[in-house]
Amino acid sequence: MLLYQQYASELTAMIRSGQLRAGDRLPSVREAKARRGVSASTVFMAYQQLERDGLVQARPQSGFYVLPAPQAEVSRWQPSPTPEGASEVAISELVFEVLQAARRPGVAPLGSAFPGPELFPLDQLARAASQSLRTLAPQDIIENLSPGNARLREHIATRYRLDGVSVAPQEIVLTHGALEGLNVALQVVTQPGDTVVTESPAFYASLQAIERLKLRALALPTDPVEGLDLDALEQALRSQRIAACWLMPTYQNPLGCLMPTTRKRALVELLSRHEVPLIEDDVYGELYFGSQRPQPAKAFDRSGQVLHCGSFSKSLAPGYRLGWIAAGRYQQRVQRLILMTTMATSLPAQAALLNYLERGVYDRHLRRLRGALAQRIQVARREIEARFPAGTRISRPQGGYFLWLQLPGGLDAMRLHQAALERGIGLAPGPVFASGPRFRDCIRLNVGHAPERVLPALATLGELAHTLLRT
Amino acid sequence: MLLYQQYASELTAMIRSGQLRAGDRLPSVREAKARRGVSASTVFMAYQQLERDGLVQARPQSGFYVLPAPQAEVSRWQPSPTPEGASEVAISELVFEVLQAARRPGVAPLGSAFPGPELFPLDQLARAASQSLRTLAPQDIIENLSPGNARLREHIATRYRLDGVSVAPQEIVLTHGALEGLNVALQVVTQPGDTVVTESPAFYASLQAIERLKLRALALPTDPVEGLDLDALEQALRSQRIAACWLMPTYQNPLGCLMPTTRKRALVELLSRHEVPLIEDDVYGELYFGSQRPQPAKAFDRSGQVLHCGSFSKSLAPGYRLGWIAAGRYQQRVQRLILMTTMATSLPAQAALLNYLERGVYDRHLRRLRGALAQRIQVARREIEARFPAGTRISRPQGGYFLWLQLPGGLDAMRLHQAALERGIGLAPGPVFASGPRFRDCIRLNVGHAPERVLPALATLGELAHTLLRT
Repeated sequence: MLLYQQYASELTAMIRSGQLRAGDRLPSVREAKARRGVSASTVFMAYQQLERDGLVQARPQSGFYVLPAPQAEVSRWQPSPTPEGASEVAISELVFEVLQAARRPGVAPLGSAFPGPELFPLDQLARAASQSLRTLAPQDIIENLSPGNARLREHIATRYRLDGVSVAPQEIVLTHGALEGLNVALQVVTQPGDTVVTESPAFYASLQAIERLKLRALALPTDPVEGLDLDALEQALRSQRIAACWLMPTYQNPLGCLMPTTRKRALVELLSRHEVPLIEDDVYGELYFGSQRPQPAKAFDRSGQVLHCGSFSKSLAPGYRLGWIAAGRYQQRVQRLILMTTMATSLPAQAALLNYLERGVYDRHLRRLRGALAQRIQVARREIEARFPAGTRISRPQGGYFLWLQLPGGLDAMRLHQAALERGIGLAPGPVFASGPRFRDCIRLNVGHAPERVLPALATLGELAHTLLRT
Repeated sequence: MLLYQQYASELTAMIRSGQLRAGDRLPSVREAKARRGVSASTVFMAYQQLERDGLVQARPQSGFYVLPAPQAEVSRWQPSPTPEGASEVAISELVFEVLQAARRPGVAPLGSAFPGPELFPLDQLARAASQSLRTLAPQDIIENLSPGNARLREHIATRYRLDGVSVAPQEIVLTHGALEGLNVALQVVTQPGDTVVTESPAFYASLQAIERLKLRALALPTDPVEGLDLDALEQALRSQRIAACWLMPTYQNPLGCLMPTTRKRALVELLSRHEVPLIEDDVYGELYFGSQRPQPAKAFDRSGQVLHCGSFSKSLAPGYRLGWIAAGRYQQRVQRLILMTTMATSLPAQAALLNYLERGVYDRHLRRLRGALAQRIQVARREIEARFPAGTRISRPQGGYFLWLQLPGGLDAMRLHQAALERGIGLAPGPVFASGPRFRDCIRLNVGHAPERVLPALATLGELAHTLLRT
């Protein structure tokens, strides 16, 4: 065993045993070198090994930090719901009530869908917008019509390539946020009455889209660690006609689970055999806490059947409404539907993002963002552990900014939601993530906002949960 | 008769007789005063009288110019198509072919939907975007979610009020261009299988939307001067269930016709009696050549049944994709559908337009824009009269930038379209404006681009038309 490997394995043991805890900073290279009498390169190689193993994370100009334990160690608490056959969906009213409540001024944004706006380079984006709009040639307006600015689509394609995914710029259509992309994708591959596979629990917008397009949802059991149950999917594919799957294999909303790469490959192969398109919602993929971006299912798409939906809204430019679909064989149909309904994404948004991406600073921003979110998840989990009733189960996501909680003693999430709102705190109660009466004792918390805002809200929520448990 | 009235009536006679022609500048107040020995205020009042009569138009820092003759004098050439009952629509393929062809680089944009981009204050908008984005508070992102920025909606509501239309800011929902607004409006008021009244010819996007939503179109005769035939509408309303009307009462695309105010009032009253919602597409309303904005049908809406769709795309900020619906009683349903599908209009577009509107320079820009378009329409008509085969009929719009031509001798618009494309000229052939085989001898020309681009293209089109007529 080489010196650096030996040092790495000692550190690994310290992390596993809890001597080094998530969020702790490893000694600086200089300190470690002095303390152990080894060379700087030995220390550095050891730290890189830990990074490759997913145990620590480098933060620029700061050092190496211990990451949360891998999900495989989380207790698998969620009772997998049994598939009950496809059903019509009627969820929108509840979702709107919850969203509307969360938008009231002054309400702590734990029910919101976006992380803290202070995490984003809004000033740099403003400069990028300014510069690019001033140098815009008037005829560029045409260039920005769907499928969208060619250079911007090339940038997006290049990012896929760097992540090991082969996507041509011609396959990409810009969308007005991922939400338009997902809705358009669903419209392109379904007809009213069709059955669409979703996760259970699922992102509420997918259920709303299914309801709106008069489709039926088949919600399949979804493991809080490994994602969708592929056996259940295979069984469904054999027994009925499935028009499409709408899934979030990476940092699923609301569970936060990450489908392992091998299972993503199996998923795509299974769907390909049955010729069923996959709508892959991958808006959180850039927000990983490990050492590299998890590969999307799209990486294994050989038949052009994966419509991969991405966005800058969660990683760079909230509110700009700029997303895209790598639409595979559906490119033309997607583009045409957009030309008929929204025509193009907004010119200043396209211009600003292209200019920003050409500055070459996006990855630096992403590293800072990931570090901040990992930290926020970490301190929020600790606060919940300290404040919520015993028996509360908390997810341990490897990316993103949502925590999924199962409350003890059958505590009713809707009651907690109401009580929290009265105290000025938003949250997303479990029932908005299912079309039937499920997840009544679960809540999703957005902990991606500033800790000084989130932690007091969590303390209050914990109090309320204690009180409701007693009454 | 007062002195100024006498002078005004002399000038009116000169205009009617052709001594003063459209585009001619009236003598300056100083010249007229010297020449006729009357006071400056007499001259000025006479000119204002002519302006109120719709005969001349004031252009800032330039003087008063004679306007094209009112439409009532145009020969009513278009054979009103007989309604043939509602029908399913299959038009998208043709429209896409035509639009795609027109987007080829270097093709003269007479088939495009937008006027010359050089007519818009792109620099000022860039400055507005820059300033507003730099001073944006991060939490403004939430403020911009649908229904959209409150101050921007107030500005829009104020403009309605100034035009004599009572619309509350709460009724307004921002949309991703008018196209999203129109599509959302149609979705909100219909179910698949429903019948929707359109004009004949109609804006192709309305036919595409009807096709996409599996509706049936009832295309009613539309007079090239006065717009939709209200008797035909009343008959249709009595004989069958109509779910909605989608109309452009002001500067209709493609005819350019303007429904008189009294008929707009009658339209709204008729629809109100039958409880049928009106989707009013009013994206050209600001581009009038007369002395004031024609009142929209929305002005007569007492029951909240008019969904009035506007946009900045044609009057201020092409490509920004910022429109709105004054949605009446449908406000909540419209807002919810947008929250489910595109969520919000793009933040930089909202911020830039709000900042621009607060500068108080919009009306000055509009006056310049209207003057330029009136001029371009004028010179294009002259060029067509000189170059096209005898018997070509040309519309005489009072606003906007489209001309509608009926070609003589049964000349096939699709053949002209093909021949023109080979010569690098785009146009919109009549058949894209109908779901059946109509308007085969008609074309729509966008003459809102720079004359140095449009006039040579018109000369070539005239040549091609002569050639095709002979073969």
